[in-house]
Amino acid sequence: MTDRKVTAELADWIATLKHSDIPEEVRTEGVRTFVNWVGCAIGGADHPSVDVALNALSPFSGSPTSTILGRTEKLDAMHAALVNGISSHVLDYDDTHLKTIIHPAGPVASALLALAEMRPVSGQALLTALVAGVEVECRIGNAVYPDHYDRGWHITGTAGVFGAAAACAHMLGLDRQRTQWALSLAASQSSGLREMFGTMTKSFHPGSAAQNGLKAALLAEAGFDSSEQGIEAKRGWANVTSTKQDYNEILGNLGQHWEAALNSYKPYACGIVIHPAIDGCQQIREEIGDRVGDIEHVSLRTHPLVLELTSKTAPKTGLEGKFSVYHAAACALLRGDGAPTAFTDEVVNMPELVELRGRIEAKTDPDMHSASVHITVTFKDDSSLEKHVERAIGSIDRPLSNEQLETKFLDQAKLVVGSDVAAQALSQAWKIDGAQTPAPIARATVPQASRAAE
Amino acid sequence: MTDRKVTAELADWIATLKHSDIPEEVRTEGVRTFVNWVGCAIGGADHPSVDVALNALSPFSGSPTSTILGRTEKLDAMHAALVNGISSHVLDYDDTHLKTIIHPAGPVASALLALAEMRPVSGQALLTALVAGVEVECRIGNAVYPDHYDRGWHITGTAGVFGAAAACAHMLGLDRQRTQWALSLAASQSSGLREMFGTMTKSFHPGSAAQNGLKAALLAEAGFDSSEQGIEAKRGWANVTSTKQDYNEILGNLGQHWEAALNSYKPYACGIVIHPAIDGCQQIREEIGDRVGDIEHVSLRTHPLVLELTSKTAPKTGLEGKFSVYHAAACALLRGDGAPTAFTDEVVNMPELVELRGRIEAKTDPDMHSASVHITVTFKDDSSLEKHVERAIGSIDRPLSNEQLETKFLDQAKLVVGSDVAAQALSQAWKIDGAQTPAPIARATVPQASRAAE
Repeated sequence: MTDRKVTAELADWIATLKHSDIPEEVRTEGVRTFVNWVGCAIGGADHPSVDVALNALSPFSGSPTSTILGRTEKLDAMHAALVNGISSHVLDYDDTHLKTIIHPAGPVASALLALAEMRPVSGQALLTALVAGVEVECRIGNAVYPDHYDRGWHITGTAGVFGAAAACAHMLGLDRQRTQWALSLAASQSSGLREMFGTMTKSFHPGSAAQNGLKAALLAEAGFDSSEQGIEAKRGWANVTSTKQDYNEILGNLGQHWEAALNSYKPYACGIVIHPAIDGCQQIREEIGDRVGDIEHVSLRTHPLVLELTSKTAPKTGLEGKFSVYHAAACALLRGDGAPTAFTDEVVNMPELVELRGRIEAKTDPDMHSASVHITVTFKDDSSLEKHVERAIGSIDRPLSNEQLETKFLDQAKLVVGSDVAAQALSQAWKIDGAQTPAPIARATVPQASRAAE
Repeated sequence: MTDRKVTAELADWIATLKHSDIPEEVRTEGVRTFVNWVGCAIGGADHPSVDVALNALSPFSGSPTSTILGRTEKLDAMHAALVNGISSHVLDYDDTHLKTIIHPAGPVASALLALAEMRPVSGQALLTALVAGVEVECRIGNAVYPDHYDRGWHITGTAGVFGAAAACAHMLGLDRQRTQWALSLAASQSSGLREMFGTMTKSFHPGSAAQNGLKAALLAEAGFDSSEQGIEAKRGWANVTSTKQDYNEILGNLGQHWEAALNSYKPYACGIVIHPAIDGCQQIREEIGDRVGDIEHVSLRTHPLVLELTSKTAPKTGLEGKFSVYHAAACALLRGDGAPTAFTDEVVNMPELVELRGRIEAKTDPDMHSASVHITVTFKDDSSLEKHVERAIGSIDRPLSNEQLETKFLDQAKLVVGSDVAAQALSQAWKIDGAQTPAPIARATVPQASRAAE
């Protein structure tokens, strides 16, 4: 229990935040967050999860104001928020707030861009709301992490709905009281269980968070009232869903310290815990060239989470491959690949990959940093090679450069919408902070044939 | 942790349940559940919460297939489920599963009737699905109550979404696997906090449960996959949201023992804990007639929950009046009223009521049954009168008769749609089990002027 008015103070900050209050380096990270999200949403747009969600839910869409990124369909803003939230997460390739493993953009950006197509605002307004939303969800996540996550909550869904509500409340210009209501309406919709990992329902969580956060803001705007202390009350969100509640993580140095500046972008299309192994194996592949065929044995020494989350030894599908450090390492050694193309059903079942992953073992070491790995390769001639990755590419200490972000964007987007559309969407997305309105960015992601008719 | 396949076994039962499997007395209670729900949804239809929700969300409705009960608007089935769920709960007058304080019909019936208007089925099919859904939500509630509720979850929302998903899965004819997915999609949307009590967001919970349960079933129908053990898995719903998990409450005697037969219907438009006090005060009023003006003092001896939940001594609004045992008792003594008309802003502020409630004190007694009260009235001439209510009307031991249910239905519905429409809606609602299709029941609740144009 706390005497601090957490929801009220947070709402006050959200309601009064201006574009000029955000330091330039934080805005710059906000733009990178947005660009990476657009690329991921296009990259996931042809996934079966998205097809199925559209089949099931399109009959319930109101006026089709908002774009399904990378596709020809438009839906109402709430359904577009849901579907873009699904597609941007479905390849496990989106952004990561490393302290909490929240994927911040899915819930927030999916809600905002869909809303902006319905109620036009400037690109600056969207970017300000995006930074506000990411800041709120990461701070709320920090307040309860790790206890909340350990209990079994999928924190991208449970904290994400606050981010979406905060962002939409800001973009709608809600006052402090209605922002409090929006946050409490978010608290009462916060959901998503880790049990769903490995099924389509995992990506449903950020989509649902986007849709429900937007709904919270729209209801509050119309005067649907709620608690003014939904986060910190005795039977409020933090007490009900976590044994840890550190409200200083939410309110401390608000506007001075920015969690939104600590976002990171995955170089590989799978859970972040196996990124060091992929990074190290790619480096080894570059060093040994053809000798990859002579590998007798590979030994990985990793952080314990790696085997807690990705210990599948015999994955059969692309999705299962994302939960197999053995497949990921084998694919990096044999093909140099960690992109979505590494996690298809076809690749996971390639005989030479299956053969190599059988030669890989993994041991955990609690002293190992989660961004590190130590790899020992033994060749058939008994020679061996050691590779230590101190910090994997994509970690907070070795962030992707803008150029690497662009490569990632284009490589995944071109598979879905072709190179021309991918390039155009990328170019538009970078310009969000100066855009007159964000809608053309959404439209730039749509396959050419469909857009020609507009 | 359990080895039992709870979600799978429950899904199997849902998927194979037939109308003829339900004993007649359980079906009869199902019809009473349905009738009471229709009356409550009409009674709440003109509440400001409903107006605000419609204002905010109507722009996002797809084809208007489904009726907002007691109003002229139609919305798509998912939005109608939400709004009817709000209106049926907003007067705190709906049904109660006494073991868990779940209000079963709101989530389940709101989803089913809206869906039935979109995809016509027989009245029998709706009634079967209704009983299935109520059974599932109450059993799932039993499995985690009271720990889950004590933690701060609003169990009508959190268990209700399972009921709605189960009911819709049954009505859509989903097979066992898809029913498992629907239950797990429900698990991942289960939400609603007790902190929201006293605000519009409380009624949002059953509405949201209806909408999200329907969405779960529609997604599962289309092939959106999910966990097959969302209820009992290590990081599934029961472990994440409760310290108690008694799976025998879910699976024990399925199809033999019926929780759905234990539903109860409130005679008074407020929390069930103050019903004994209202019942006793109404009885006293009938006995003393005009001497109600001579009351010097009233002493209530009650179950401890009464003061934990309804101890407001100076309510200012109708809503606050529902959380004041003093107001409720005074209004029963002075006006004989416990209907929605007893909980208006005007009545709560009537000087003679304010005066009388100042003469009422309440003491708790942990040995008192929650359906009991002992009342001592002292008159100005020092004479006194004792009234002991062993079991209040509306409790499981003194259920409302069909005639009392009808009076309740008509008294609340006529205030919103007039006596003729109320009577017609009531007559139609009783016939659900034999109805060719349920849609005409929904249409019978609509104010006359609007229906004339159809």
